[in-house]
Amino acid sequence: MSPDTLHSPSSDALPQGRRPVYRRADLLKLLEPQSIAVVGASARAGSFGERTARNLAQFSGRLHLVNPRYDRIGDAPCHASVAALPEVPDLVVAATPMEACEDVVRDCVAAGVGALVLYAAGFAETGRPERVALQQRIVGMARQGGLRLLGPNCIGLTDYVRRAEISFVAIPRPQAPPTRPALCIVSQSGNLGFALAQSVEAGAQVSRVLTCGNSGDIDVADLVAALGEDPGCSAIALLFEGMADPSRLIEAAAIARRKGKPVVVHKLGTGEQGAQAAMSHTGSLAGSNEVYRAAFERAGMVLSESFEGLLELASFLAKAGRPRAPGVAVVSTSGGAAIMAADRAEAHGVSLPQPGPDAQAVLSARIPEFGSARNPCDVTAQVLNDPGSLQDCMEALLADPAYGALLLPNGFAYDVSTPRFHLLDELAARHGKVGCVVWTTQWLEGPGAREVENTERVAMFRSMDRCMAAIAAWHRQGARGEVEARAPARLSPPGARDAAARLLDQASGPVLTEREAKAVLAAYGIPVVQEILSENAEAAVSAAEAVGYPVVLKVESPALPHKTEAGVIRLNLPDAASVRDAFAEVMRNAHRAAPGEPINGVLVQPMVPPGIEMVVGARRDPLFGATVLVGLGGILVELMRDSVVALAPVGAGEARGMLGRLKGERLLSGFRNLPEVDRDMLAGIIQRVSELAADHADRIAEIDVNPVICAGSRQIAVDALIALSPAAPHG
Amino acid sequence: MSPDTLHSPSSDALPQGRRPVYRRADLLKLLEPQSIAVVGASARAGSFGERTARNLAQFSGRLHLVNPRYDRIGDAPCHASVAALPEVPDLVVAATPMEACEDVVRDCVAAGVGALVLYAAGFAETGRPERVALQQRIVGMARQGGLRLLGPNCIGLTDYVRRAEISFVAIPRPQAPPTRPALCIVSQSGNLGFALAQSVEAGAQVSRVLTCGNSGDIDVADLVAALGEDPGCSAIALLFEGMADPSRLIEAAAIARRKGKPVVVHKLGTGEQGAQAAMSHTGSLAGSNEVYRAAFERAGMVLSESFEGLLELASFLAKAGRPRAPGVAVVSTSGGAAIMAADRAEAHGVSLPQPGPDAQAVLSARIPEFGSARNPCDVTAQVLNDPGSLQDCMEALLADPAYGALLLPNGFAYDVSTPRFHLLDELAARHGKVGCVVWTTQWLEGPGAREVENTERVAMFRSMDRCMAAIAAWHRQGARGEVEARAPARLSPPGARDAAARLLDQASGPVLTEREAKAVLAAYGIPVVQEILSENAEAAVSAAEAVGYPVVLKVESPALPHKTEAGVIRLNLPDAASVRDAFAEVMRNAHRAAPGEPINGVLVQPMVPPGIEMVVGARRDPLFGATVLVGLGGILVELMRDSVVALAPVGAGEARGMLGRLKGERLLSGFRNLPEVDRDMLAGIIQRVSELAADHADRIAEIDVNPVICAGSRQIAVDALIALSPAAPHG
Repeated sequence: MSPDTLHSPSSDALPQGRRPVYRRADLLKLLEPQSIAVVGASARAGSFGERTARNLAQFSGRLHLVNPRYDRIGDAPCHASVAALPEVPDLVVAATPMEACEDVVRDCVAAGVGALVLYAAGFAETGRPERVALQQRIVGMARQGGLRLLGPNCIGLTDYVRRAEISFVAIPRPQAPPTRPALCIVSQSGNLGFALAQSVEAGAQVSRVLTCGNSGDIDVADLVAALGEDPGCSAIALLFEGMADPSRLIEAAAIARRKGKPVVVHKLGTGEQGAQAAMSHTGSLAGSNEVYRAAFERAGMVLSESFEGLLELASFLAKAGRPRAPGVAVVSTSGGAAIMAADRAEAHGVSLPQPGPDAQAVLSARIPEFGSARNPCDVTAQVLNDPGSLQDCMEALLADPAYGALLLPNGFAYDVSTPRFHLLDELAARHGKVGCVVWTTQWLEGPGAREVENTERVAMFRSMDRCMAAIAAWHRQGARGEVEARAPARLSPPGARDAAARLLDQASGPVLTEREAKAVLAAYGIPVVQEILSENAEAAVSAAEAVGYPVVLKVESPALPHKTEAGVIRLNLPDAASVRDAFAEVMRNAHRAAPGEPINGVLVQPMVPPGIEMVVGARRDPLFGATVLVGLGGILVELMRDSVVALAPVGAGEARGMLGRLKGERLLSGFRNLPEVDRDMLAGIIQRVSELAADHADRIAEIDVNPVICAGSRQIAVDALIALSPAAPHG
Repeated sequence: MSPDTLHSPSSDALPQGRRPVYRRADLLKLLEPQSIAVVGASARAGSFGERTARNLAQFSGRLHLVNPRYDRIGDAPCHASVAALPEVPDLVVAATPMEACEDVVRDCVAAGVGALVLYAAGFAETGRPERVALQQRIVGMARQGGLRLLGPNCIGLTDYVRRAEISFVAIPRPQAPPTRPALCIVSQSGNLGFALAQSVEAGAQVSRVLTCGNSGDIDVADLVAALGEDPGCSAIALLFEGMADPSRLIEAAAIARRKGKPVVVHKLGTGEQGAQAAMSHTGSLAGSNEVYRAAFERAGMVLSESFEGLLELASFLAKAGRPRAPGVAVVSTSGGAAIMAADRAEAHGVSLPQPGPDAQAVLSARIPEFGSARNPCDVTAQVLNDPGSLQDCMEALLADPAYGALLLPNGFAYDVSTPRFHLLDELAARHGKVGCVVWTTQWLEGPGAREVENTERVAMFRSMDRCMAAIAAWHRQGARGEVEARAPARLSPPGARDAAARLLDQASGPVLTEREAKAVLAAYGIPVVQEILSENAEAAVSAAEAVGYPVVLKVESPALPHKTEAGVIRLNLPDAASVRDAFAEVMRNAHRAAPGEPINGVLVQPMVPPGIEMVVGARRDPLFGATVLVGLGGILVELMRDSVVALAPVGAGEARGMLGRLKGERLLSGFRNLPEVDRDMLAGIIQRVSELAADHADRIAEIDVNPVICAGSRQIAVDALIALSPAAPHG
């Protein structure tokens, strides 16, 4: 057999009751067993039992074998049952077929075993009802009996410090166990979890690998929380597919974060198929993948865009600590690598500032004419004749307050350059900063690579692009931390919740009219355009005189949620005559677009002067509840999908952060002759919409404020849509 | 010393005369020397001479040592001079300091040596005039004497087949020389060139590595052309920074392409700094980096977005040949890897179609219930008990006409899975298709990796994302080939060139007025909006009645190229009264914006009904000449930089291809209630603008047709700007 036995479990193999995540104390017998019993031990070479016992040969605790068919296996005694063991083992590993698992669970509960690992497949992942039921029965029995269960359909777990290497597959083995806190790898997919684990063969410093198979009892959230409290864990690298109740993962990540443990996640299943259908444009932009991103963000997790960068990023964040300064210094021995560093830094918005006078003086003195004494600097091969020059340059740059990190590309793997890595480690430690080696040589495991992995303050990257992306994420994380410190104050007026509730009660239908929707927004202090409902042309004319020309005419009818498409809007009407013509025209179009449907009349609004058009929306996500979205209005949000989602409600800092993540954020700084948008004010509108969505998450399915026309601090919602949940009551 | 000696040469270390690229025949004595002499041979361990001779110990040809200070070195004879050698060597390697190089060149020319490699640094790369002059003198002497020169400031070159490993650095060494045509690596940066070369230590199949240092004589274009004709070369991986006359690279790549050799390029120096300043929006979008992309495209080169993916992509294209079908089949032993494949395929627009009935029957029969008998399919670990099932599934999928490639993720590196790679190689060869192994295990050089590299039809990828990106590039390249087959017919009318020339002669200034510019466009058959120049309000009113309400008013003045910003445009005027008001207003604004400047009057144009706004532009690039650009108009092109550049002129197929590469291409399929844009017609406008720009490249610095309003086949240019080159004559 092999890791291939595990095919990836469905994210909701079992519906889970909402329970708090397990903590380290809850899982101690799984994570730090003093004694392990292998049930289904066997003398047959290649059997699960035989492989498991072999993998456990170097276990630092006590190992017991259980199988009624043997008295001894090799020279170890073998016991008839769990009950017959000389002690109650902390952990039992069941190398038994599916059919035997129920009995194993019963025996373990009876004996008071602390934790159980089930390899056997053929449970809920088959999708067959009787197998789903069997898994539920087993899990129920274990929970009842206080037995923590990992699996079923689980490939196992390893603890490289205690040498508890519990699996039936060939265990990836480091040359030596880690000597200080190291990475923990957590994966739903056993195959990919062990794919990551094999990095230890190449020198990656990993303390634990955990895979949870079908997540019948223990799931990734439990493992993240428990490892967050594990002193041997420096950071958690999580390979994630999805789960029925992801809010548990947020809870878990918060625990790890409080303990100062970075949690880095790479998510699988990001394709459209994964995104849920949604009722309107705005909704469709907030596909579940975007919501996951928002949830990870809220939880303080860091997203790794690439699978192959997951361990790099986690290891970097563990070694880097908090950024001391935003600048990065690059010390290259190659002009080409220096160019590459500048390119990728620019692509990720990482700044490579020039050194201050002190550092500059050292560079100028130490770097030869055919090198480059700027940042990125090219110290040239000189350093081989005169290693002191490299040391002086690195030290000067690390001492410069402008720099929080020093980046050293390595284009040639050979023993000669290895001492540089130790030097960088020592200097980085001395200055409380971080070093990054970018392994540009394509001899991926060439001489020196293991040494870099094994340093305390020097992170290894096998891609310049991923290195700069990691540094950018590190800075965002640092900034985020500060934002979070400020508690998010509620922005909407005290009475808003009740006032909106009353308006929702009176809604004319499951989709509120524009006028009804704006009233709800107004209750939360969101500026909306003035309007007068007019039932005939003359009323419209006097309304126009009241609000002032030029005006806009819009037919109001619950049957016409998308007015532009229906042709029931006329803009920029300068005078009474044009209002009369427009009234007749939009009514004609309305009757054509929605024959026989009720029409309340025509809304007359003042024409709002041009500005940047934004869309602010909200939507209830089936997994995460209320979410809020901001995007660049009109064509941009629809075509370029330029929008950012967050879990509702958001605070001021988070709302500002959302604006900063818009691709077209520059637009807010003023466009053509439009003034710069007051970002704090716009963030306030986002915050108010998020509060509205969160307050009424049980009733509001979706909010679409589109557009909000923004010019400087003149920001006003000119159209709005609110859709209620099918379940929700309305008048 | 080390590869670090080479810091990357400036792209135009020496101004080069325009000469045709060297071909294989021109460089045969460099590429396939029968005899090599080391000038500056030495007994001193660690000296350039000693290292070079050591590296050449296994050279399959005749090796000579030259140094007047020795009679013998070790047990090899050492000669006093090149002239004193027993034969005229094909190739001389000079391990001498800068000061001695001029004499070495003189001696080599006198003796009739074929090629010379100069290690010495300190020439043009220092930027010091006397050193630039010295390099020019040496290169001139060599060219005069028919001596091909590689360098100076060159780290060397290796030929792994003939074991001609010519360098002073530790040569990356494969376990065995390649047994069939293999990759050739060409790099301007010696350090990064050898960083790529070190991949041979991990099993990459490489036949040659060439670095050209300062490119005094031989540059990357020469090497690409010569390697294109080298039967031992399967594909060329080019690490490129830039060159004074890049059109030579296009010439070279065309030679390689005709020989069926893929040329894959990764470009350094892609940052803003690299992009040239430009006069207007459109220009600024066509920064030199975009133009390089366009040039690579035109040359049929394939761009590798990442440095670390360069060799993967080149090796894949060499192994893949031409795509037989667009579909990709994924055979995974892990559900997680199957999800990852689906995610990345979607991200790169690679299709994973379902199998036809025959293949489906085999999958259904061979894949267990807990697997997945779809595409991507999860055959599960079953295959270890029953390898025949994997073989049957792979064979059935490769036999299915829907698939051109079969992708096999490998999550666990161990000897057990190695036979699968040989099996895939054999099956892929049998069906004339290609296999891809995606090495998801992070044991990057784990067991089996070398075997994959060494197959004939199975490409190795250490990233699922890069694998799907490579497959997408392969498909684009295939499609491109077909497009190219059709010769680009000229679209503009016969008299266009002369008519436009006359209009340019009569231009009122270096920047043509809108009216003048539109006349030039019209001469090329580009549809432009009708307009009447009016000098007073009443003339404007009668003009409005002539063209029909609603109308647009625009002040015409050479002093006001950017009308929107100046507030001298009024849109959508419905009647005579509003035309009178608007006339007064725009004239006021015009006098305010350009006091005392001449104003020709006001253009009256019919208001063009709404449509998709496109921008079509052209610009003369200092390196490449005329280029053409298309983008999504207004806010999108300015904010999202969503534009595509090509070298002018373009054919119909290339113009259509440009539209396909727009990020917002979906917009052309219709937006809100706008009809789908007739892409062929729009491509025609691009083609005509490109012909205009190319015909008058000596006079036109820039064309900016913005916007072209497109609705279905109603496509019309409503504003246009043409700027002449400072040099160019105008009335």
